[in-house]
Amino acid sequence: MTHSVQLLGISNAIVDVLAHVDDDFLKDIGAVPGSMTLIDRDQARELYGKMGPATEMSGGSVANTVAGFANLGGTAAYIGKVKADQLGTIFNHDMRSLGVDIRLKAAASSAPTARSHVLITDDGQRTMQTYLGACLELGVADITTDTVDSPKIMLLEGYVWDIAEGPALAKKAAEIARSNATAVALSLSDSFCVDRHRDSFADFVRDDADIIVADEEEVFALLGTDSIDETLEALKGYNNLFAITRSEHGSVIVQKDVRIVQAASKVDKIIDTTGAGDAYSAGFLFGWANDRPLEECAKLGTYCATMVIQQLGARIEPGLLDDFESL
Amino acid sequence: MTHSVQLLGISNAIVDVLAHVDDDFLKDIGAVPGSMTLIDRDQARELYGKMGPATEMSGGSVANTVAGFANLGGTAAYIGKVKADQLGTIFNHDMRSLGVDIRLKAAASSAPTARSHVLITDDGQRTMQTYLGACLELGVADITTDTVDSPKIMLLEGYVWDIAEGPALAKKAAEIARSNATAVALSLSDSFCVDRHRDSFADFVRDDADIIVADEEEVFALLGTDSIDETLEALKGYNNLFAITRSEHGSVIVQKDVRIVQAASKVDKIIDTTGAGDAYSAGFLFGWANDRPLEECAKLGTYCATMVIQQLGARIEPGLLDDFESL
Repeated sequence: MTHSVQLLGISNAIVDVLAHVDDDFLKDIGAVPGSMTLIDRDQARELYGKMGPATEMSGGSVANTVAGFANLGGTAAYIGKVKADQLGTIFNHDMRSLGVDIRLKAAASSAPTARSHVLITDDGQRTMQTYLGACLELGVADITTDTVDSPKIMLLEGYVWDIAEGPALAKKAAEIARSNATAVALSLSDSFCVDRHRDSFADFVRDDADIIVADEEEVFALLGTDSIDETLEALKGYNNLFAITRSEHGSVIVQKDVRIVQAASKVDKIIDTTGAGDAYSAGFLFGWANDRPLEECAKLGTYCATMVIQQLGARIEPGLLDDFESL
Repeated sequence: MTHSVQLLGISNAIVDVLAHVDDDFLKDIGAVPGSMTLIDRDQARELYGKMGPATEMSGGSVANTVAGFANLGGTAAYIGKVKADQLGTIFNHDMRSLGVDIRLKAAASSAPTARSHVLITDDGQRTMQTYLGACLELGVADITTDTVDSPKIMLLEGYVWDIAEGPALAKKAAEIARSNATAVALSLSDSFCVDRHRDSFADFVRDDADIIVADEEEVFALLGTDSIDETLEALKGYNNLFAITRSEHGSVIVQKDVRIVQAASKVDKIIDTTGAGDAYSAGFLFGWANDRPLEECAKLGTYCATMVIQQLGARIEPGLLDDFESL
């Protein structure tokens, strides 16, 4: 089977609005530190009015992974919905400039391009308040044999389930994938997202997904487990390949009887954890798409995550991964 | 005389689009390293299409100074033209969030908000390609006793002379300033800008400006001198207060017989020189507006410039200047 590209991402296309805040700011707006909350347009306007000066960068979880994958030299394509406004232009530019094939046209008329207010506290943790805007208009009609084509891996994010047609479009995408021998990967996005859609995720993991990328909290939420040991035990009943990140405890790769434990790298100073998991996925899937052994995939994921937490923003700049091949 | 605010800036309101490039990229587009070139909308589109992923942040030379001044705790206001588009919203938000009083409404119908493509090379130097868009529509009619009010200092930038009505609006602003005992400060912007408008600048320095903030290349261009010694000699004929920055050679403050030499601070690694001069002006003018001795003004300017070159972007984040008062 010849694949058109190595990775196709389907996800919410978002521009991040990053600002440093103190803990009191999070208390004031009633945000749980480290969480992602969906907000509407009025709430977005109110929040932005309270925030200090910000920096704008393309973001979105799986979109970050796709950008990182392309940055590593992989071939990639992307399905996500932006409006033809200035933020949409920025989002598409940043993808295209890395060689990513944008499969949908920016919508002439829709809600504005989505933005996620990323509130970074002194410990480098980020709390996100996301206005989904145009993303909510991604629909089943956008998923066709033309737009999906025949990638080696298709990566969906859990956040897509927050879109009205999300579960249906994910199912359709998985069906097209099956007919092209495309591996279906699912990022669990965040544990609250898993809570919102647990049953539907469980079905998708059982019926459609080959690879699951997630942090341990997300896997706990999916399986109803409390610890990594309990989780590893529970995963014996699954056939999927799981890549589970555990912050400073590194990551563990699980596939049936295989268990690969990868330590985290030492970091002098964490600037901003935004995109750590997304970067891990980029490195891991790049290894997988290039038929590297799973040990090496885990190493590549760790390398990318280590790079991204030492900078502001969720995407590693081109050129910073030059020594990647010498690992 | 009671002043409404300490500092009013009148300048081009610009959003920076920052990206790292290599030297070959600058050669390809025919840009002189370290220069600022004005480009039109088609050129902007073409350049952006060639650039890698970018980060967006509010910028503009004197706008950066105004933001920095407010960030230091000074009271500030701003006159500049943006369109009521997403980038204009970002520009105004970033100002207002620092407490800056925005004096003009965003234009409902105009060219898009200006953007400056800031191309950063490995040595931290920036080369700018600026599309002025809505800025070009700033006019004499925008300068009134209401919008100008009675600031302690009014700061204009040389780039304003690139606007069709720029010289006339600068003159009108200076006249209003005179009637309010407002000190008129002029930033010379860049040496190419001085070349473009030398005679008009010379008139403005002679007739209207009390304070000149500039780097030495700009002063050389204004006076037709070649060295700092020759420049200091030539300045004996001037009554203005000059604050002249000299990169790693520090700065020198000149006013009639007064000469104050301030050394630069040691910096481990320069990340991006964008905004170094603007930050110096913020610190210097903050000292001046608060009636500090000139030696201290120069120290404050140096402190701000030192902070800003150790980060990406032209504006120092709120909170980073906490130890400013302990200098």
